[in-house]
Amino acid sequence: MRAATIRDGEVLVADHPDPEPGAGEVLVRVRAAGLNGADQLQKRGAYPAPAGAPADIPGLELAGEVVRCGPAAERFTAGDRVMAIVGGGGQGELCTVHERQLMPVPEGVAWTHAGGIPEVFTTAHDALFTQAALAMGERVLISGAAGGVGTAAVQLASAAGARVTASVRNADLREQVLALGAHAALDPQATPDAGPYDVLLELVGASNLDANLPALATGGRVVVIGVGGGGFKSELNLLVLMGKRARIGASTLRARPLEEKAATARAMERHVLPLFERGTLQVPVAATYALDDVAQAYERFAAGAKLGKVILEL
Amino acid sequence: MRAATIRDGEVLVADHPDPEPGAGEVLVRVRAAGLNGADQLQKRGAYPAPAGAPADIPGLELAGEVVRCGPAAERFTAGDRVMAIVGGGGQGELCTVHERQLMPVPEGVAWTHAGGIPEVFTTAHDALFTQAALAMGERVLISGAAGGVGTAAVQLASAAGARVTASVRNADLREQVLALGAHAALDPQATPDAGPYDVLLELVGASNLDANLPALATGGRVVVIGVGGGGFKSELNLLVLMGKRARIGASTLRARPLEEKAATARAMERHVLPLFERGTLQVPVAATYALDDVAQAYERFAAGAKLGKVILEL
Repeated sequence: MRAATIRDGEVLVADHPDPEPGAGEVLVRVRAAGLNGADQLQKRGAYPAPAGAPADIPGLELAGEVVRCGPAAERFTAGDRVMAIVGGGGQGELCTVHERQLMPVPEGVAWTHAGGIPEVFTTAHDALFTQAALAMGERVLISGAAGGVGTAAVQLASAAGARVTASVRNADLREQVLALGAHAALDPQATPDAGPYDVLLELVGASNLDANLPALATGGRVVVIGVGGGGFKSELNLLVLMGKRARIGASTLRARPLEEKAATARAMERHVLPLFERGTLQVPVAATYALDDVAQAYERFAAGAKLGKVILEL
Repeated sequence: MRAATIRDGEVLVADHPDPEPGAGEVLVRVRAAGLNGADQLQKRGAYPAPAGAPADIPGLELAGEVVRCGPAAERFTAGDRVMAIVGGGGQGELCTVHERQLMPVPEGVAWTHAGGIPEVFTTAHDALFTQAALAMGERVLISGAAGGVGTAAVQLASAAGARVTASVRNADLREQVLALGAHAALDPQATPDAGPYDVLLELVGASNLDANLPALATGGRVVVIGVGGGGFKSELNLLVLMGKRARIGASTLRARPLEEKAATARAMERHVLPLFERGTLQVPVAATYALDDVAQAYERFAAGAKLGKVILEL
């Protein structure tokens, strides 16, 4: 099979042996695979693939058709439309995935969009609901709201009845973020907003967190899931945190073991995929590229200033 | 009535009008009242009493007999033995307490010990179980384990089937902390312990937290409820926190509204008081003082180097 391949800090297309599905695994013919920040890190050698994932084929998410099932894999049959988060290897024509990590593609969702659902919607749902327990009527500030996870988080929080404030650096993108359901869109470099917010979803980093912490409400929860844009060293005032009876959590999806990733897939099936079927949620797509143009796809992703996902079509 | 009274940074005994129980309140003849760190702060003017509490009578906990009930107070009757956390005013002969904050004194527990239960056991239970969700089989590091909250936390965590490591600065007290159920007692100034720990209970402060964070396990929880001994500015590495999928919470009890304090009292009745009746838990008492000797009691508390509570008997 052909696959996006990382060689000496560059991404190109190369031939690889077809993967074989092991026990409990499913072989998928990939149709679309979203790009994510971690792919860029992996390309630079800063984020090696976890054990069990192909070392040189990037790609953390995919959508495609089931080719065949390995021993003891029983959830799907050949031809089923499926999608998943994977530890790596999503950006190849074929990929093996444990059946517990797979989700069905929601009715009516095209391949291009399906390939951009798993990583950002699972990350956003896990952070906002599983970790921060965001609930109806609460106020949430989403920092970095125009990115992939940000646009997913804005839609999910809004759909759950929360009041969403979106922090978006690029002024040209604020209107589009408002159209996804945000109540207000802020410039993070303007005067800090006083909030208060019950939940802060931090996708930018420490400098942002330090600026936003004073706006956290009593009993507030912070979840940090991205530090690429704002550094990672935060000066935390424990007295402020005690006074607010607040908590700060931080997480990544990629390093989690199978059972935890499978649990996030079940949460997606129960709480998120029905909203795709109803048409409540969408995947904003900034650009699509054929596999042969994978280098351009990575350049487009790195250039930023986009709303939504960059998708590779295979 | 006579009560401990804060005047110009000193604590003395003065006469006050007898308090009258309002709607839902109970008038208690106080028999014993523990001293706590917050009393010392309040004496220095650094921690004013919350609204509704006497401004100049210290005391965050008490045990005593019900004298009479105010309108609509129905949970207790005259003569009942009760104890509670209060916003202030616990160190006087009479104190009014909302009936939802009161707990019965467990069978077989003497006044002196009962007066030292509410603040430290409620604080420790809330931090370890309600906030950090400590569970059987997990590993917990308790920093500042020889103090009031620390000795309560060691006993509670041990009783719940957790493996307790106690960090105790004063070498003379480590044997006694081990006798309360700790599996190991460490010197916080020696080589940092590698853990790993599922829960860190931080009673000392930021310098301690920074030293202990590397020992936190994947999925670990930190709860900060004291910063008196180690400062309050922590340099938090968000990448480390993300890698561990960890969270840091911080809290105080005193500022919480009635319904939250009442909820902690119900949790105590359900989970902690039965263990006092069974004799599993104890209140180590370092020293007792009569009301007339309240200034000496405060000096004893401030001197430190003690295991367990300083109790005022009234």
